[in-house]
Amino acid sequence: MTPRRQTPRVPVTSPAAATVFTTVLTEGPVSRVDVARRTGLSSAAVTKAARPLIEAGYLTELDSATTGVGRPASPLEVVADREFFVGVKITHDELIGVVTDLRARIRVSGHLPLTSRKVDAVVSNVGELVTELLKAPRYRERTSTVGVTVAGDVDPASGHVRYSPFLHWRDVPLAELVAEVTGLEATVGNDVKAITVAEQWFGAGVGAPSFALVTLGTGIGCGLVINGDVVTGSHGVAGEIGHIPVSGDGPLCHCGATGCVEAIASTDAIVAQARTATGEPGLTMAEVITGARLGDVALRRVFARAGVAIGRGLAAMANLTGPERIIVSGEGLDAYDLFADEIRETFATHAFGAAAECELILRPLPFEEWARGAAAIAVRTLFLS
Amino acid sequence: MTPRRQTPRVPVTSPAAATVFTTVLTEGPVSRVDVARRTGLSSAAVTKAARPLIEAGYLTELDSATTGVGRPASPLEVVADREFFVGVKITHDELIGVVTDLRARIRVSGHLPLTSRKVDAVVSNVGELVTELLKAPRYRERTSTVGVTVAGDVDPASGHVRYSPFLHWRDVPLAELVAEVTGLEATVGNDVKAITVAEQWFGAGVGAPSFALVTLGTGIGCGLVINGDVVTGSHGVAGEIGHIPVSGDGPLCHCGATGCVEAIASTDAIVAQARTATGEPGLTMAEVITGARLGDVALRRVFARAGVAIGRGLAAMANLTGPERIIVSGEGLDAYDLFADEIRETFATHAFGAAAECELILRPLPFEEWARGAAAIAVRTLFLS
Repeated sequence: MTPRRQTPRVPVTSPAAATVFTTVLTEGPVSRVDVARRTGLSSAAVTKAARPLIEAGYLTELDSATTGVGRPASPLEVVADREFFVGVKITHDELIGVVTDLRARIRVSGHLPLTSRKVDAVVSNVGELVTELLKAPRYRERTSTVGVTVAGDVDPASGHVRYSPFLHWRDVPLAELVAEVTGLEATVGNDVKAITVAEQWFGAGVGAPSFALVTLGTGIGCGLVINGDVVTGSHGVAGEIGHIPVSGDGPLCHCGATGCVEAIASTDAIVAQARTATGEPGLTMAEVITGARLGDVALRRVFARAGVAIGRGLAAMANLTGPERIIVSGEGLDAYDLFADEIRETFATHAFGAAAECELILRPLPFEEWARGAAAIAVRTLFLS
Repeated sequence: MTPRRQTPRVPVTSPAAATVFTTVLTEGPVSRVDVARRTGLSSAAVTKAARPLIEAGYLTELDSATTGVGRPASPLEVVADREFFVGVKITHDELIGVVTDLRARIRVSGHLPLTSRKVDAVVSNVGELVTELLKAPRYRERTSTVGVTVAGDVDPASGHVRYSPFLHWRDVPLAELVAEVTGLEATVGNDVKAITVAEQWFGAGVGAPSFALVTLGTGIGCGLVINGDVVTGSHGVAGEIGHIPVSGDGPLCHCGATGCVEAIASTDAIVAQARTATGEPGLTMAEVITGARLGDVALRRVFARAGVAIGRGLAAMANLTGPERIIVSGEGLDAYDLFADEIRETFATHAFGAAAECELILRPLPFEEWARGAAAIAVRTLFLS
């Protein structure tokens, strides 16, 4: 592995600098006066915080004439190509990787099937994919950080994957291993929380201080942003909407409890219930979806039950945390038409008072978006170093 | 009503000043160096922010000799008597009022039974109680703000009580009415969220960036602090743990849904289920508790079911928001021995992974504490003006 850290990190040395940089990154181009207004900082503090960022080439002042505004506003803008970032999402059978710029816009992308789920093999595959993604010198020379995400319980602070159900990993020091094999600084995170960061800064979460991103599929996950911060949980657990108990007599969940949303509405749970309902042990998810669309009553009932469980989970979240909107995504959206009514009706029934005003937004996220989430947590290290 | 605003407000004119004042208020006495370390502000910024607060008499520099520290640290401390605050909690049958100092320490307290639940009568009673509480000139002269809290949906920004189920109020401009009758600046809030502010600053929440306070009783409410902020909800609804759907076939709730925690575990719900179970329509809560303690199987089952519902609600909250600890309080604690085991066991079963490390802390809060919460939101107006 050849790439080594090429770039000195951005001089974000104070909370004010982080605030200014984030504001310009997510809302720019924006004038110093507007940055001051939006952040509560004084104009002098904005100017002081912006100076080293401009000197280091991360921010630039646009010619005020180019903005079409009469007065000399000199808006600040991010220099998106100043640094690039690698993002890699590890799924149960492949790696998805991207190179993005500072704004998390995808510049290069690639896939690599996993040869095995063993830690050494996966890490080695990550090394291969990163080398491939960075083969153009223009990207390699300006990249110093890789973000890697995985479903499960990940501790960004220590860089450890504590538990990944789909990879069967426990307590793997993934950040360290990836840094070793790539020569880049590495940061790791939960896949859903990472994509939530990307949505917060560059997607459907922009302008919403509080929102939730819920993913339906093999697992049912959730990233939660409250008052502008991704909620990480005091004990490292948060957003586990899949493990809200919504039914007293629901099926047993892999977590050991009964009645979890995930035990009723994950892809596996839907297939299992469909097999039981039809007595056909070989049914696949595709067949279950097709059968339900063709009107099979037993299969439709399975989806209806899943929709009720999801709707209850969403209502529990809205009642507790009050997001402005809930973005629903994940590969489970493929079957959304089969439980959309139950989800919406159940949510409306259980949302308390004004919580019913919380919008449900469907947003399909192609697989590359998951790798972009991984790149977004790499971008975020600029503020944490 | 004689008291008029006597005191010019504290000069908290910048986010830095608010941060410094909050830090000294909740953690003082504390040196400038420590304030800088804890807040991320520069020492110069701390000194600059503290100066007008010292000049206005809200902060003072302790003689470093008095702290027993060798070097001249000159810790900053709040002058607790610089300003006093009135807090009034409105229950369904009485007012509870206190006068506190800046640290929300109770200096005077009093009760007044409501003569009626009509808005005019209640507001008039609030005026009487405030006059009584402030009859000593030393308090009256240094008091300019009253906080009033009530159970239900309250919008602090507009000063309106949108809905109070126990008072049968809808859209009452309470802040305006109270300001008129008392001559004080008035702020209003939900009672549980207000007591959460008091716990965050001066109680069991100190040092916990994320915690929840759950109250059991006539209603089941919750105040939620995440990353240091009380969660208020984008649509004004948050912390509604009483309306999490935890059972598919639970009883009908007053909110219109079925299976809510509150429909199974509130005082009224327990009494209703006990009456049905025993066939005794006249049973009171006291009799239900006594009977259950004496071993009545049907009554014990009612409490067990309530405990399971509460435990599920707590687990849903811990899984979603990851609080460091959950403080359980409210008049429902009187019967806590009757469902403690079910609450703890159900919580442990449904808490996902490390969420089980979230502590459950019992904390009885005497009624005066509710009025202290109302005073705490009055203290908080110092930072919002």
